[in-house]
Amino acid sequence: MSTLNNPGDLSTSLEEADRLDAADPLTAFRERFVIDDPDLIYLDGNSLGCLPRATINRLDEIVRREWGGRLVRSWGEGWFELAAHIGDKIARLIGAREGEVILADSTSVNLYRLALAAVNARPGRRTILTDDLNFPSDLYILQGVAGDRRVRVVPSADGIHGPTEALIAAMDDDTALVTLSCTVFKSGYTYDMAAINAAAHRVGALVLWDLSHSAGSVAVRLNDTAADLAVGCTYKYLNGGPGAPAFLYVRRELQEQLSNPLSGWIGRRDPFDFALDYAPAVGLQRFLTGTPPMLSLSAVEPGVDLLLEAGIERLRERSTRMSNYLLARYDERLASLGFHLNSPRDTARRGSHVSLGHAEGLRINLSLIHDMKVLPDFRRPDNIRLGIAPLYNTFVELHEAVERLRTVVVDRLYERHDPTHLKVT
Amino acid sequence: MSTLNNPGDLSTSLEEADRLDAADPLTAFRERFVIDDPDLIYLDGNSLGCLPRATINRLDEIVRREWGGRLVRSWGEGWFELAAHIGDKIARLIGAREGEVILADSTSVNLYRLALAAVNARPGRRTILTDDLNFPSDLYILQGVAGDRRVRVVPSADGIHGPTEALIAAMDDDTALVTLSCTVFKSGYTYDMAAINAAAHRVGALVLWDLSHSAGSVAVRLNDTAADLAVGCTYKYLNGGPGAPAFLYVRRELQEQLSNPLSGWIGRRDPFDFALDYAPAVGLQRFLTGTPPMLSLSAVEPGVDLLLEAGIERLRERSTRMSNYLLARYDERLASLGFHLNSPRDTARRGSHVSLGHAEGLRINLSLIHDMKVLPDFRRPDNIRLGIAPLYNTFVELHEAVERLRTVVVDRLYERHDPTHLKVT
Repeated sequence: MSTLNNPGDLSTSLEEADRLDAADPLTAFRERFVIDDPDLIYLDGNSLGCLPRATINRLDEIVRREWGGRLVRSWGEGWFELAAHIGDKIARLIGAREGEVILADSTSVNLYRLALAAVNARPGRRTILTDDLNFPSDLYILQGVAGDRRVRVVPSADGIHGPTEALIAAMDDDTALVTLSCTVFKSGYTYDMAAINAAAHRVGALVLWDLSHSAGSVAVRLNDTAADLAVGCTYKYLNGGPGAPAFLYVRRELQEQLSNPLSGWIGRRDPFDFALDYAPAVGLQRFLTGTPPMLSLSAVEPGVDLLLEAGIERLRERSTRMSNYLLARYDERLASLGFHLNSPRDTARRGSHVSLGHAEGLRINLSLIHDMKVLPDFRRPDNIRLGIAPLYNTFVELHEAVERLRTVVVDRLYERHDPTHLKVT
Repeated sequence: MSTLNNPGDLSTSLEEADRLDAADPLTAFRERFVIDDPDLIYLDGNSLGCLPRATINRLDEIVRREWGGRLVRSWGEGWFELAAHIGDKIARLIGAREGEVILADSTSVNLYRLALAAVNARPGRRTILTDDLNFPSDLYILQGVAGDRRVRVVPSADGIHGPTEALIAAMDDDTALVTLSCTVFKSGYTYDMAAINAAAHRVGALVLWDLSHSAGSVAVRLNDTAADLAVGCTYKYLNGGPGAPAFLYVRRELQEQLSNPLSGWIGRRDPFDFALDYAPAVGLQRFLTGTPPMLSLSAVEPGVDLLLEAGIERLRERSTRMSNYLLARYDERLASLGFHLNSPRDTARRGSHVSLGHAEGLRINLSLIHDMKVLPDFRRPDNIRLGIAPLYNTFVELHEAVERLRTVVVDRLYERHDPTHLKVT
């Protein structure tokens, strides 16, 4: 299988796809998910991950027994510790230690909380540095955080590759915070975190990573790269369910130096004292605010357990083999049909999704969904985004998806679709 | 039943309790909830409401069909609108109009968002006014919001009644915001919202109400009392499930005047444009930030539907009859045993819970839970808090709870219990 690191050498036949699936023990994990329609090719696990079978039982347990039966007593029987308990498991997927990851709120609220905590910890510095490949919501949040500081958005030269050199050149002693998407949502470009962290630390800035498109598919190494802060969502590759609570990471050595601006009772020392003045809890707990949504929170654990069982290194290895296979298929079957590749060729700098651009991208995407039973995602202006979830997608699916994509374009099926009818998916 | 408005005239016999239950059509709603153990007297519905039977089916539907089967397509099939859809239903319980209530995040995050939006809309004014009966978490959040402003905490004279006159006297042209718990978490005192709103408006301040202990049991009239802003939780009397997403209310005329400091993509105009700059959505949508936890969110609706079916006016009427019955029982059976009443006598100023103080309150509470199958809540220093959920608690339960409480004290069962073993419940 090592030849797959060089897409040009690949056989991309259906037989080869079948052989690759059969040879990989991770393929068996697909059976652990609810797959209602085996003919549907779901390539949007980086928007909403599939439902693990075990999650159905976990939810039944928390709803009927813990809420229905035990009622408020469940808070004393594990509910209060659950956000930290699942956080410790996620820590193992992103290279962090126990007590450095906890679940709370949404990715955006966590980004606000940690970005504001970070800039408050760097008084006198007036710049928040990011790039234009960052998820736009992250930029909106930074605009809300900034106050009288400025948000400097470094442009990518080609809209695909992160502007690493320009970012490092822009860092100076006015930089309070550098914040980026580790894997960017359109192109799938994945930053060299160690390089960014080291450069930021040289000028005394903190770094905050959004791991939403990385966690569960890229072998993130927060501790090894000396990362300060991170946030990320749990409903993509972690399969935690729609809008499931997000996670946040604060390097242990920083926890007592930062203040949570959203100072709520769950983050207070001795919350049941009900004292009138806030005093932060010791450790990561201080970054919590209000009561977590327990049903959605509990649903995160079974998906994380599956990832731990598979192993993040093995998943990353499968993911890169799959995306290389997809690129080889693209070169062979699609490149001549008006497509262009909106993702990096370099495997080391690519996450687990591949974006294909096409002038008729929006219509092609609609046709894939409505005529061909392929579910990718579309991102303006022209990106057909093919997400590969290494835990349940297969090589055979990638083979077939490219064939269906080719059919849409060769037979011009997309001409039937009016993009003004686009539904949000 | 009208005699129940005067507790002194009451018969408090078991037969009378039985008759009162039988005569009230609302008693039938108890059957719509999961009651695993009919001998357990659950008086903590103001901490975590019971599980409606219909919620089990709703969760099964969203988990298996919407997440498992429809996957990301569900966002285009109702998920995006659900927070506003349920919000419009809650609006009818708290006297608001369509488009004025939406579900988002936790009560604390909503309080932060609206309090900061409010003080930003009153530049130059430096005081946030509240009282010491407010839920401490609300005070912590205000401390985080304040920045270089001050939080003025007006004390209650007796720890039971809200200091309405002192609050009104403290309002002046430096007051940016007045924020209070409509029904206070310890004593159950319930403010005259119209009086506070009118006084605040006379000095040009905005008012933000925390309705957590009111919504679903007190007939709140946000529009009629000219309320500006409100937040509240859905897991108490609304029976939405543990940590379910909270609601926020912004009076229609204020929506375009306030900015959400947590400026995220769900609150942006045309979020799927993925433009780099934030621009607020029209209307209430702008107060949203990140993706809501859909499983916990969906679980809110069946409980709200039950309240709408029962009718909030009828529920409030039942609640006051029940708390008056409880007070009559207290006078007859408990008052001479070292208890004192930590709640208002005045029905109009009392929400749906009654707090009984006792020097041995903590031990008594533990004995109730562990020996007597009564689940109240305990709030330091000495409050045994008896929550009455008019949708599923009964007069007979109140009769019996007082009898068991008396047994604990008369037989001094509580002496067996070491309060250092108190678990959070």
